[in-house]
Amino acid sequence: MKHDLLVRGGTVVTASDIQEADIAIRDGVIVQIGRDLGPAARIVDAQGCHVLPGAIDSHVHLAQPSGDGIVMADGFASGTLSALCGGTTTVMPFCLPAPGQSLRAALADYHALADGNLHTDASFHLILNDPTEAQLGQELPALIAEGYRSIKVFMTYEGLRLRDDQILATMDAARAAGAVVMVHAENEDVIRHLADRAERMGDLVPAAHARTRPVAAEREATHRALTLAEVTDAPVVIVHVSNGEAIEEIARARARGVNVTAETCPQYLVLTARDLESMDWSGAKYVCSPPPRDEAHQQAVWRAIETGVFDLFSSDHCPFLYDSPTGKLNRRGRQSFRHVPNGIPGIETRLPILWTLGVMGGRIDMMRFVALTATNHARTYGLYPRKGSIAIGADADLAIWDSRIRRTIRHADLHDACDYSPYEGFRAQGWPMTVILRGAVVVEDGQPVGGPRGRYLGDRGA
Amino acid sequence: MKHDLLVRGGTVVTASDIQEADIAIRDGVIVQIGRDLGPAARIVDAQGCHVLPGAIDSHVHLAQPSGDGIVMADGFASGTLSALCGGTTTVMPFCLPAPGQSLRAALADYHALADGNLHTDASFHLILNDPTEAQLGQELPALIAEGYRSIKVFMTYEGLRLRDDQILATMDAARAAGAVVMVHAENEDVIRHLADRAERMGDLVPAAHARTRPVAAEREATHRALTLAEVTDAPVVIVHVSNGEAIEEIARARARGVNVTAETCPQYLVLTARDLESMDWSGAKYVCSPPPRDEAHQQAVWRAIETGVFDLFSSDHCPFLYDSPTGKLNRRGRQSFRHVPNGIPGIETRLPILWTLGVMGGRIDMMRFVALTATNHARTYGLYPRKGSIAIGADADLAIWDSRIRRTIRHADLHDACDYSPYEGFRAQGWPMTVILRGAVVVEDGQPVGGPRGRYLGDRGA
Amino acid sequence: MKHDLLVRGGTVVTASDIQEADIAIRDGVIVQIGRDLGPAARIVDAQGCHVLPGAIDSHVHLAQPSGDGIVMADGFASGTLSALCGGTTTVMPFCLPAPGQSLRAALADYHALADGNLHTDASFHLILNDPTEAQLGQELPALIAEGYRSIKVFMTYEGLRLRDDQILATMDAARAAGAVVMVHAENEDVIRHLADRAERMGDLVPAAHARTRPVAAEREATHRALTLAEVTDAPVVIVHVSNGEAIEEIARARARGVNVTAETCPQYLVLTARDLESMDWSGAKYVCSPPPRDEAHQQAVWRAIETGVFDLFSSDHCPFLYDSPTGKLNRRGRQSFRHVPNGIPGIETRLPILWTLGVMGGRIDMMRFVALTATNHARTYGLYPRKGSIAIGADADLAIWDSRIRRTIRHADLHDACDYSPYEGFRAQGWPMTVILRGAVVVEDGQPVGGPRGRYLGDRGA
Amino acid sequence: MKHDLLVRGGTVVTASDIQEADIAIRDGVIVQIGRDLGPAARIVDAQGCHVLPGAIDSHVHLAQPSGDGIVMADGFASGTLSALCGGTTTVMPFCLPAPGQSLRAALADYHALADGNLHTDASFHLILNDPTEAQLGQELPALIAEGYRSIKVFMTYEGLRLRDDQILATMDAARAAGAVVMVHAENEDVIRHLADRAERMGDLVPAAHARTRPVAAEREATHRALTLAEVTDAPVVIVHVSNGEAIEEIARARARGVNVTAETCPQYLVLTARDLESMDWSGAKYVCSPPPRDEAHQQAVWRAIETGVFDLFSSDHCPFLYDSPTGKLNRRGRQSFRHVPNGIPGIETRLPILWTLGVMGGRIDMMRFVALTATNHARTYGLYPRKGSIAIGADADLAIWDSRIRRTIRHADLHDACDYSPYEGFRAQGWPMTVILRGAVVVEDGQPVGGPRGRYLGDRGA
Repeated sequence: MKHDLLVRGGTVVTASDIQEADIAIRDGVIVQIGRDLGPAARIVDAQGCHVLPGAIDSHVHLAQPSGDGIVMADGFASGTLSALCGGTTTVMPFCLPAPGQSLRAALADYHALADGNLHTDASFHLILNDPTEAQLGQELPALIAEGYRSIKVFMTYEGLRLRDDQILATMDAARAAGAVVMVHAENEDVIRHLADRAERMGDLVPAAHARTRPVAAEREATHRALTLAEVTDAPVVIVHVSNGEAIEEIARARARGVNVTAETCPQYLVLTARDLESMDWSGAKYVCSPPPRDEAHQQAVWRAIETGVFDLFSSDHCPFLYDSPTGKLNRRGRQSFRHVPNGIPGIETRLPILWTLGVMGGRIDMMRFVALTATNHARTYGLYPRKGSIAIGADADLAIWDSRIRRTIRHADLHDACDYSPYEGFRAQGWPMTVILRGAVVVEDGQPVGGPRGRYLGDRGA
Repeated sequence: MKHDLLVRGGTVVTASDIQEADIAIRDGVIVQIGRDLGPAARIVDAQGCHVLPGAIDSHVHLAQPSGDGIVMADGFASGTLSALCGGTTTVMPFCLPAPGQSLRAALADYHALADGNLHTDASFHLILNDPTEAQLGQELPALIAEGYRSIKVFMTYEGLRLRDDQILATMDAARAAGAVVMVHAENEDVIRHLADRAERMGDLVPAAHARTRPVAAEREATHRALTLAEVTDAPVVIVHVSNGEAIEEIARARARGVNVTAETCPQYLVLTARDLESMDWSGAKYVCSPPPRDEAHQQAVWRAIETGVFDLFSSDHCPFLYDSPTGKLNRRGRQSFRHVPNGIPGIETRLPILWTLGVMGGRIDMMRFVALTATNHARTYGLYPRKGSIAIGADADLAIWDSRIRRTIRHADLHDACDYSPYEGFRAQGWPMTVILRGAVVVEDGQPVGGPRGRYLGDRGA
Repeated sequence: MKHDLLVRGGTVVTASDIQEADIAIRDGVIVQIGRDLGPAARIVDAQGCHVLPGAIDSHVHLAQPSGDGIVMADGFASGTLSALCGGTTTVMPFCLPAPGQSLRAALADYHALADGNLHTDASFHLILNDPTEAQLGQELPALIAEGYRSIKVFMTYEGLRLRDDQILATMDAARAAGAVVMVHAENEDVIRHLADRAERMGDLVPAAHARTRPVAAEREATHRALTLAEVTDAPVVIVHVSNGEAIEEIARARARGVNVTAETCPQYLVLTARDLESMDWSGAKYVCSPPPRDEAHQQAVWRAIETGVFDLFSSDHCPFLYDSPTGKLNRRGRQSFRHVPNGIPGIETRLPILWTLGVMGGRIDMMRFVALTATNHARTYGLYPRKGSIAIGADADLAIWDSRIRRTIRHADLHDACDYSPYEGFRAQGWPMTVILRGAVVVEDGQPVGGPRGRYLGDRGA
Repeated sequence: MKHDLLVRGGTVVTASDIQEADIAIRDGVIVQIGRDLGPAARIVDAQGCHVLPGAIDSHVHLAQPSGDGIVMADGFASGTLSALCGGTTTVMPFCLPAPGQSLRAALADYHALADGNLHTDASFHLILNDPTEAQLGQELPALIAEGYRSIKVFMTYEGLRLRDDQILATMDAARAAGAVVMVHAENEDVIRHLADRAERMGDLVPAAHARTRPVAAEREATHRALTLAEVTDAPVVIVHVSNGEAIEEIARARARGVNVTAETCPQYLVLTARDLESMDWSGAKYVCSPPPRDEAHQQAVWRAIETGVFDLFSSDHCPFLYDSPTGKLNRRGRQSFRHVPNGIPGIETRLPILWTLGVMGGRIDMMRFVALTATNHARTYGLYPRKGSIAIGADADLAIWDSRIRRTIRHADLHDACDYSPYEGFRAQGWPMTVILRGAVVVEDGQPVGGPRGRYLGDRGA
């Protein structure tokens, strides 16, 4: 029987293995791995390259409204196209209900925005910003049963943050129905206390953003979130961990038996709080939460990547135009850090940064790269075995990496709809020059080919 | 010049010294320590005994209303008399404003109750249960300036608990005005979550009290309180620490530079959660918060006493009648642990318990006993050098301990107005048979003599 | 092209994946994984079973002399046959030079004993018991270059233990030449101090073995070994870790950046020190070093398996006849624990124990089982990619597990040459009923078929 | 009755108290503390000053031979005179037996050197450098019974270091006879390994001393010493702790229940390893062991002083002439760091440094200063209650500190016989201008008056 596609001559890398093998694909699915796999309608030559699972970015924000006329630079089309060109074949954006809106209505809105615009496959996390008893008792269990198996809660941001009792109730409901709870762990009260003080003292520059969200605020919320998970016996994901003290809390909780998955992001490896201290207002380009820390914390994050404290490496792509009234420099954002929208783009640069510094830099091997960027995401969020690995029966999502490629990151070369990259000038070694989505070649020679072929992945963990 | 009183022939113990010396007193104050001190109007023979500073109990509840018709068994008269007979010459009760009442009005009420009824000297802590901006901005600083230099906040109990933003504001105000903040650290939301669940499952016995206030809830709140202190740079006291995990948080915070004082109580050395598991409802006798834990945590508390993690050993005397409609077995308290008032008596037994198990048991020396029960209290709450030690110029508050005395604790022998002791049957070795308050012998041969001579200590740390 | 062998219909498990797939084998090597793999000379039906990589046991003692007429119960033939029947296809025994013997001469002896007797593949670790300058400077580097890439040092046992300066020199030489150093970490002086004291007090029963090798002695040596590795920057394996305190040292060292791999064994999950406390001398059956600890340490070991502190799960198979003058109850062993040879058998029961308690018991998933018992061993000791996984080009070593099988472990059913099993009566769920070694079916229906087909694996990591 | 001496008008400071009081002295002993103490033969005016216990320096090396013609700059006369002028009234030097010499013979030598030359009181520690069975079984217990109650062992220095079995035997003997064991904790093998390597690489400058004695070597030996104490249940003193990692080991051991006292010294607060990196050979002036570390470790040492990890603050005075063939720059010391004698002077500057940085700098209060420099030394080494405090019946050893004095440390002003001070140029605020030894004024206006009045303190803890 003739295969649809044969990826030939490459080195196949999974989370546990490196092997010289060809991959045969039929009907969008991997059917054979090995040698002498027989004829195929199309052959992709992977000689000299590493064939990895298409990556999953389980932490991206697309088309999410931010209030006050602030809008995200990327909708589903540009966001997923950018992801694809960076070697990512599945993204997991958030669905955020408007105030008073039901989860189901919000999902309808987000699905409408996504439909027909996806360049990668996708699946939503549900943000719970107002967990009523009805929601927790009925709507949420029903949605989880339908396959929405990850819930996000915030411990910071006015209007989003939940109280401890609400988080406990959410964790209880999630565990009972079989979902996992993602937590943005920063203590809002601490932050507001410090931000109010900064404001009173006239300290309004972007750098004040980092000063008013100290490590202690993240460590505290991390400890608290892990305690709430301990009490409810619920599986929990601590997202975008930025520093060594929060890492220590995660390790301690794990040793107590808490079922915790931990995520970090490129900004905590590459940026520091000093990036916010530009003389002009361009520090706003690096305003995200938690903020980048210092070199010692960068090293702690690396160490935790190397030693297995971290399971997930995501982008937390949250793109705002820099020089725009709807973005970082909106009318009020030009005047105070408190009005600079929080978030930075990074969906396309996530993998080349980790490949360059981690794999080429000798800190992690390629198998750990695959685990951190694909397999563990699939497992944590119920997409495995369909996604996240190169295995028989899995979707044929592949990224073919060529480590001989050297590229300096320039925003002009990226495919998002933002107007800058916080990683401008980063010298990458290695790039995913060919990307395959369910058997279709969607990136060739580093350039996207064809239109949006992405699908929504609905029945996670079902 | 003739002294008023000479304490002769004893072994004088302070927080750092043990010496054979007489003590000469004039006008209620210690004027000389040494040998051959000359004639005195009265001589107390301390041969064979240890002469210690009169102890301070900085954590007692007297005459505090508890709502729902529940009343405390002890007012100021019985409470301070009981304290005195246990070797304590200064107590620090709490002033709790009624809902909507100003601090100043509440203080007027408490002073009225105390006036003329004090057998020991006394000074109030202020409970902040509803910190308005006006309170924090004006009333509190004024009161602190007048000498009320310790503020108590609760992280548990509906109606008392403060949110993090309120605690931050309180700590900020306290630090600015020169007061210390005491924290009852248990996570109310965790406790309510578990108590609601216990109630739904019909688990209403007194033992459920301990099950629904787990170590994790105390550890979490302790970590959080210490973070809030870290952020505001305020000195903080973590009161009634019950377990090894909270102790670890305190040690870690101290290593981070947090200015934290730590307190524990007899219940965490002598009782365990199993005491609440009686077949009948008598477990209610041991309902206090945090609850007693297990033997391993008792050992952790001892270790922390020995190694200096703890600075303060208080009673947390909070007396409710057991068999009474106004006490433990009130109408609803007979039906559910949630309505059993929290708190146990212990103002008179605190010192004999620590003397017996700690000093006679070889765990601590007498100097550490003095530090834990007197000197450190005076220092933490601004009563030093007037109180807390045996030094020239200090108030002549003395407790003369006779280690040859063996007494089994029987409630019938105690002087409080409660109807039971949680330590009934405890075999004490050593008792303060003579107590002197500002130069007046107020306990002789173990029995109180004379009426209430206590004074309010108003100008702490001024 | 026709395959030699096709394993059909099973669920294939690697350290990162679970997939429904067939496996095609040619010339002893895996050539294809997938569906519809075409004809084969022989087909093995794996329906309803899990197909795992043949396991590696990297810690076994075979045919090692013990002095004083004590001999090991297993030589290479019985030892490797027993391994095979337990699902292990590669073993790594130790080569121990006799006093004064060169490493090369010792290797010649061991190779002579192994040749023709191997039922599994095998590769030796070199024990360094007397590291002369010549050995470290010349013999060792040459042997490492030839493929002997793992060196074992002892911090205990008179005649084997090395001083710190010797360990440092060994680590230095190993790192320079590209080998890894395995460490038996127990402080010999502490043990001898306590054993001398026990002897003086007449405490000679087997249980004294555990009492005189306390957790502190293992924790200390572990900390020290990790420091020596830190100073020399050498990769190190801490073998047979038995308790939570040593585990904590490993985690701390890892956080400092020490390149440490950690191993534990079934005895630390299933046995406790109480097993040594039999009324008669049968406690000798459980005498091994480090000794089994208590339940709390068992839980710590499980936790460390679950959370990734441990990389390796080995048997430390070290078999002595129980009731024999050459074994546990030798003339002097009947009189004092000091003369009971240290070690217990377990090469065949290792995997069923972990499968039953770990996988069936819900503590770890099958992928982690594979990592702990096969893949990580191959990677740590340079056998990967030839051994340790199911991948294209790898040796076709497979173990086909049937979880429906329930067997109570009886020594009579095992294939070693010992006379007891410490796990007698253990109820296993799941057993490797078919085992394949380089494409040859060597165990069928749970019974070995055919003679010794094992080979020595000589060019590790070359 | 007329007093011999009255110290009038000062503020008396003990380890637990500060009081305005006079001190009356008769027959060299404190007889009264208080007001209106009556007439005295001599009056010392302490107005505006703090009256502290004469300090104890329990870690000094005097007249100790160092082999190879290296001699200490200070004998007993100059060393104790220098101590006295810095506010120290009791020193505890070491008695080091020559190779093969009995402890008793060595003591005879040291006593002969000290007799008639002591300006302070003194008591010896015994160094055990070759603990034979006879020594441990007979000589040592006899000497301990005679009052020599502290033993020093080394884990570093060729010729001094003991093996673990020797340390265990020593601790056992010490505990049994009632002595405490002091440990110099650095791993000799690690140091020699690194020093050999440095030598091979031609790295011979003084700075290599610090590089070859890394924090890891001290942390390891500290952990090991504490384990040996844990196993033998012996009280132990870890001397001259230099860094945060060793501090952490001490805190952990204490939490495990080990009876450990910890000491640090001025060099770890004021110097860093960079001081050894002079362009010329003057870095040799700062060669001591353990070496000074970096700023982060200095902060860790401060934190441990503040939080009570450290009990003792000593000088480790170990003086060698800098520019002399018998000192630092001896013939071979000019060529390699390995021949620069280890040790620096500091007996006179110890207290002004801690007073200035600690008390005046706001890190510790005066009571903690007294505990760290006097009281705790007396208690640890059995000199209490005779020495270490201001109490009735204690020796009248007093240092009267004037905080208004500002002095820049110049070696020319010091009283030792060395030729430099490592603290040259340090700006001190506060100096002990009057010193009293057993009732005799021995320093007036900052200048010594009269000859050597010191006595040997023989019956410690008897």
